[in-house]
Amino acid sequence: MVRGIGDDCAIYRPRAGEELLFTTDQMIEDVHFTRAQTAASIGERALARSLSDIAAMGGEPRFCLVALAASDTRWIEDFYRGLLPLAKRTGAAVAGGDLARAEKYHCDVMVCGSAPRGKALRRDGARVGDSIFVSGRLGKLWDRRIQPRLALGQNLRGLATSCIDLSDGLSLDLHRLCVESGVAAEIDRVPVTRGSTEDRALHGGEDYELLFTMPEGAAAPRGVTRIGRVVRGVTGEIHFQGRLLEPRGYDHFRKQS
Amino acid sequence: MVRGIGDDCAIYRPRAGEELLFTTDQMIEDVHFTRAQTAASIGERALARSLSDIAAMGGEPRFCLVALAASDTRWIEDFYRGLLPLAKRTGAAVAGGDLARAEKYHCDVMVCGSAPRGKALRRDGARVGDSIFVSGRLGKLWDRRIQPRLALGQNLRGLATSCIDLSDGLSLDLHRLCVESGVAAEIDRVPVTRGSTEDRALHGGEDYELLFTMPEGAAAPRGVTRIGRVVRGVTGEIHFQGRLLEPRGYDHFRKQS
Repeated sequence: MVRGIGDDCAIYRPRAGEELLFTTDQMIEDVHFTRAQTAASIGERALARSLSDIAAMGGEPRFCLVALAASDTRWIEDFYRGLLPLAKRTGAAVAGGDLARAEKYHCDVMVCGSAPRGKALRRDGARVGDSIFVSGRLGKLWDRRIQPRLALGQNLRGLATSCIDLSDGLSLDLHRLCVESGVAAEIDRVPVTRGSTEDRALHGGEDYELLFTMPEGAAAPRGVTRIGRVVRGVTGEIHFQGRLLEPRGYDHFRKQS
Repeated sequence: MVRGIGDDCAIYRPRAGEELLFTTDQMIEDVHFTRAQTAASIGERALARSLSDIAAMGGEPRFCLVALAASDTRWIEDFYRGLLPLAKRTGAAVAGGDLARAEKYHCDVMVCGSAPRGKALRRDGARVGDSIFVSGRLGKLWDRRIQPRLALGQNLRGLATSCIDLSDGLSLDLHRLCVESGVAAEIDRVPVTRGSTEDRALHGGEDYELLFTMPEGAAAPRGVTRIGRVVRGVTGEIHFQGRLLEPRGYDHFRKQS
């Protein structure tokens, strides 16, 4: 940053050959969290959710802006005690934001990431015949810490044909990827978190793993699971073990980005 | 934009020689607005407030991200009916965002602007002897439409030594500019909106005019008023017609950007 907090705007000087990635995600009291949870865990999670979007595009975090509405100054300090270490560890320095007093707590974290020009991973590149992979195991419980898959996303640049992060459930997010790519998918299996269920792994949200496609036969990174393949068919339609899988993950109205 | 809505992130390809400006502002139900106001007026205002920060840096809007929490789909459509024409008119295309269902309505608009490298106006360049100016008249009522001073801000690049937008009141915003620049100020007069009061013009917020400094004797743009000058003194201290002026505009806690 040329200039962060202390002016009307933060100033960022782009580097030669970089393309910038932008995402923003809200965490709303009594929708995404309650005050029974620690403020630090909410602060960390608020940033981690946006970092996961940067990971899904193969980006490197550059900075973030934090818009926060709250009233308890101690809570606000704790919120930042959770957010700041993750910001530092991932290179997403807090460059500014907006702080307002409100009774209903709310935060919105915008993250800017960077990728070499034309190299960002997108949802619209899956091709018929590609293999479909996920990182980690799915069906996580809400209170699991999010580990944004930044290194994996960066490693997939130039390898994956498409990528999306699993925030609203495999069935819905894979549906979205297929719609953007104009393809269909067949899933054979899904890696389930210990103690969770296959149904939750298929439809539960908040996993924050990466779902991506690669050409058949290409060597996949370690630690990922091949779950199926991209097929010709009705755009967006997914079959799981031979049966039609309805996209029924989480959707407030529709998800914009 | 290379890619807007429809992926995990929006993608922006920086142009050669540009520096990017980022600002974000919240509008919160029962803090900044009520549902008695039209959703369209709130949508327009939400974007206009952030555009005013871009204006204060001399920037040209490039795109915006809109994070919105609401539950009534008709209200949401009306909100965008207010926001989108202003976005189009100013070049701040909606590139993405986040939409969530919530009972307490809330929006946060992030705007990215652009300025030639090293040319963005800042708060920290005021020098002893500079003249202090404001655009328009101050003490506006809340329901006045905001006209972000984008053209003026761009015209001030290379002319003004410092600039800030008046969002929280002249006394507080001038105090901030003086603190960042390490100077003091003397104010002789303030242009008051018809029907308003001098007290409101000095301390009321939500004017969204530009406050800026220029070297003494430099030709100021048309339509602005010279209100005083930058002086040596206790950093941040302001005198109005010979008396100390306390910064008592609006401050939720402290304002970050």
